[in-house]
Amino acid sequence: MEGVDHLAHERSKAQFDVDQMKVVWVGSRHALQVSDRIARLVASDPVLRKDNRTMMTRKELFKNTLRKAAHGWKRINELRLSEEEASWFRHYVDQPAYTDLHWGMFVPFIKGSGTEEQQKKWLPLAYKMQIIGCYAQTELGHGSNVQGLETTATFDPKTDEFVLNSPTLTSSKWWPGGLGKAATHAVAFARLITDGKDHGVNGFIVQLRSLDDHLPLPGITVGDIGMKFGNGAYNSMDNGVLRFDNVRIPRDQMLMRVAQVTREGKYVQSNVPRQLLYGTMVFVRQTIVSDASTALSRAVCIATRYSAVRRQFGSENGGVETQVIDYKTQQSRLFPLLASAYAFRFVGEWLKWLYTDVTQKLQANDFATLPEAHACTAGLKSLTTSATADAIEECRKLCGGHGYLTNSGLPELFAVYVPACTYEGDNVVLLLQVARFLMKTVSQLPSGKKPVGTTSYMGRAEHLIQCRCNVQKVEDWLKPSVILEAFEARAIRMSIACAQDLSKFSNQEEGL
Amino acid sequence: MEGVDHLAHERSKAQFDVDQMKVVWVGSRHALQVSDRIARLVASDPVLRKDNRTMMTRKELFKNTLRKAAHGWKRINELRLSEEEASWFRHYVDQPAYTDLHWGMFVPFIKGSGTEEQQKKWLPLAYKMQIIGCYAQTELGHGSNVQGLETTATFDPKTDEFVLNSPTLTSSKWWPGGLGKAATHAVAFARLITDGKDHGVNGFIVQLRSLDDHLPLPGITVGDIGMKFGNGAYNSMDNGVLRFDNVRIPRDQMLMRVAQVTREGKYVQSNVPRQLLYGTMVFVRQTIVSDASTALSRAVCIATRYSAVRRQFGSENGGVETQVIDYKTQQSRLFPLLASAYAFRFVGEWLKWLYTDVTQKLQANDFATLPEAHACTAGLKSLTTSATADAIEECRKLCGGHGYLTNSGLPELFAVYVPACTYEGDNVVLLLQVARFLMKTVSQLPSGKKPVGTTSYMGRAEHLIQCRCNVQKVEDWLKPSVILEAFEARAIRMSIACAQDLSKFSNQEEGL
Repeated sequence: MEGVDHLAHERSKAQFDVDQMKVVWVGSRHALQVSDRIARLVASDPVLRKDNRTMMTRKELFKNTLRKAAHGWKRINELRLSEEEASWFRHYVDQPAYTDLHWGMFVPFIKGSGTEEQQKKWLPLAYKMQIIGCYAQTELGHGSNVQGLETTATFDPKTDEFVLNSPTLTSSKWWPGGLGKAATHAVAFARLITDGKDHGVNGFIVQLRSLDDHLPLPGITVGDIGMKFGNGAYNSMDNGVLRFDNVRIPRDQMLMRVAQVTREGKYVQSNVPRQLLYGTMVFVRQTIVSDASTALSRAVCIATRYSAVRRQFGSENGGVETQVIDYKTQQSRLFPLLASAYAFRFVGEWLKWLYTDVTQKLQANDFATLPEAHACTAGLKSLTTSATADAIEECRKLCGGHGYLTNSGLPELFAVYVPACTYEGDNVVLLLQVARFLMKTVSQLPSGKKPVGTTSYMGRAEHLIQCRCNVQKVEDWLKPSVILEAFEARAIRMSIACAQDLSKFSNQEEGL
Repeated sequence: MEGVDHLAHERSKAQFDVDQMKVVWVGSRHALQVSDRIARLVASDPVLRKDNRTMMTRKELFKNTLRKAAHGWKRINELRLSEEEASWFRHYVDQPAYTDLHWGMFVPFIKGSGTEEQQKKWLPLAYKMQIIGCYAQTELGHGSNVQGLETTATFDPKTDEFVLNSPTLTSSKWWPGGLGKAATHAVAFARLITDGKDHGVNGFIVQLRSLDDHLPLPGITVGDIGMKFGNGAYNSMDNGVLRFDNVRIPRDQMLMRVAQVTREGKYVQSNVPRQLLYGTMVFVRQTIVSDASTALSRAVCIATRYSAVRRQFGSENGGVETQVIDYKTQQSRLFPLLASAYAFRFVGEWLKWLYTDVTQKLQANDFATLPEAHACTAGLKSLTTSATADAIEECRKLCGGHGYLTNSGLPELFAVYVPACTYEGDNVVLLLQVARFLMKTVSQLPSGKKPVGTTSYMGRAEHLIQCRCNVQKVEDWLKPSVILEAFEARAIRMSIACAQDLSKFSNQEEGL
């Protein structure tokens, strides 16, 4: 059996056009070509090697991140890669780094929440990486409840400055990637206080470290929060802790697109609707859903290949044993995960459409579909990331003992993926948001208000409650319309039953 | 809030005698006292510190293991600890080490499978640790299917020796703990071949490394198989790979309690029944179930304390937020795991009784209850280890982002625990064994054969199939007899339905 290509036979049995499927998977023939070309570029670059990551100490690993980030930046510029190519490049470097937050949170947030003037000042510095930004929102004691943040930014009219303070241990910023070692600047979130009045949480651009010697500026206490799950995984990231002790910043470093503080210290809402910020959230969650399908497809790919190669039991008369992929116990665990990887890819594409749709409507000041779009992205973020994390672990177990070696790729894939269940909205909290939206939709049905988008089936509640499944034979389940109606009937029945249960509480939140 | 003991208030509300519960948990007041005393001994010993394990390189970590093992051995002897005390000592050192296999597999296997003469020769050497043993069964290509092992031990009557060979890559021994670096000897499993005839798998004592310079002996290729899941976790263990190239051992190093090879090369079964070996399996699995409750209780303890201290949302008028333990969404995930930790503890105690019972019956040549006991331990091993692994990960998620830091203890607890789902019988394979036993039991019901032990309820199949649950009010569910009968009714109905489904296949194994 040695030296045999155990997979060639399996591959030869494919009943679909593999090349065509690749195009469907990536999105277009053009995208496939770019992706392939950049994948080869990254794979052949010795600086971007990944094979020894699990053996490095934390310090070596972080140095490796710095080296890769600097090298990647250099290559992207040398080769004059387009934004599409650069994005594939970063995708294939595939190592969490402070640059993820710089490009993925710091820059977009300034774009979304900064005035034109602020964008003109800060974005060129960020684009050239003359400053490195992070996104300092979460505090040690405050994660999901952003409105409960404790850090304060108090306006001092004497000097036209804000004074930032973290008065307690629980008010320490905790987790921001890039904060621990790399960032020179942060978008920091703090309660805005003017003239003794608390205006709630706002974002501020704060310089953390000197651009000369990279040392923390006066009043700034900053550091790395330590080791995280897995050998390599997110340990390449410098998640950090930050405390402010009377740190002063000029007034124009408050991000002022939706609200301003005037020279006199007056708090003024602008005429830019706050809902515009939801557009960004839909965008970020769409990326998370797409990333789920990528992570899941890698895990499923490893487990499927292993299942084809691995043989165990079933040998007759001393012949070869049965491939484990031929056992129903293996198939019933593996194949639904394979199907989910495709499903998440296609729902990710659909979310791209939803983002475009939401953006267009917001620009036309039409906010009617926003709650549904918001619930939809919250639900899909939660569903796809939880399912993917569990599925990676299941794929690991499907490889038996071999899945426990980091060489299988699966332990690291799990450890680096699983925070997706927590960041950008804890999955349980997000599901509660979806539940609240569904309960509200149900409560509005009697008034005749038409549910929109993915909940439009709820408008057919009366039919769905009464209808019976008219499946006669097994093949009927292959009709998507039959499955869809079954899910719709189940969803509306469960929603209405839940609403009835909750109506027994004087306060709906008591049911949580 | 800083400096406040956030847990004191919660603890003051306990509605049971905490001290009494500790006794119930550990088993007796005596055991609690010993356990407490040894826990303090280990915790105060600077050599046995655990706080920096996740920061060490693999090499540092393995040196740390060697240091702890040598130090532990020295302390156990210096303090003249009893076997009970020494066992608690090793429990609290709590770092996977080659000694686990030496004491837990090598020594017991020689006891169980060696003749009196062999025990007299090898056990004193092992007890004094003049030799270090490992248990070399699993091969790269052969895990669950032990009968499929490829390594051969061919008797050479000319020299009165066995010749060991690993003819292929897949026949390499792969995984044995202690093999990679530490072991001088192995109990190695190989197909016994005499006069061209294959007698199946037997155990052999093989020296691997020189007792002078610890270098591998001629014909032995041996090494470590690399990094495993987690930062520290099982990376303190030297899981190894081993190949034999015409390695010769004297005939008397075949473990000969149940079968012998004579000087002439004749294969002879002894009059010791093979079933006796099952006693050891029941013993090992009983330990695994007890260990499950220990691992789970640690995780639940961390998550419960966190849930009491952590506050999020629900603040009214700027007051403190709600403790997350007061949310039903947290309770419904956490409390069943807490209950499981207790349930697994008690079922572990029951398995100790089962082991005693099986042992007594085996000694009286009574094998009637063995299949049921075997199915029972297989099912409980699978159930408790899968539930515990999933529960540790759930506890990690219940601590939100903080569970992702190794400082929470949970990532390491998961990574070090999860192999329990694979070793000593893969959980899916074990469940199939339970299923086969249940199907056999169902098939024998019409013949009037009385099911024994935990399956005796199946003898009441007719009643259970017809009976209706007579619960009238919610409180009725607090009666254990009601719950028990409900489970019995459900189990027998599902077993019979499954047997009927399987009867449609010409070969029952096709249903797998």
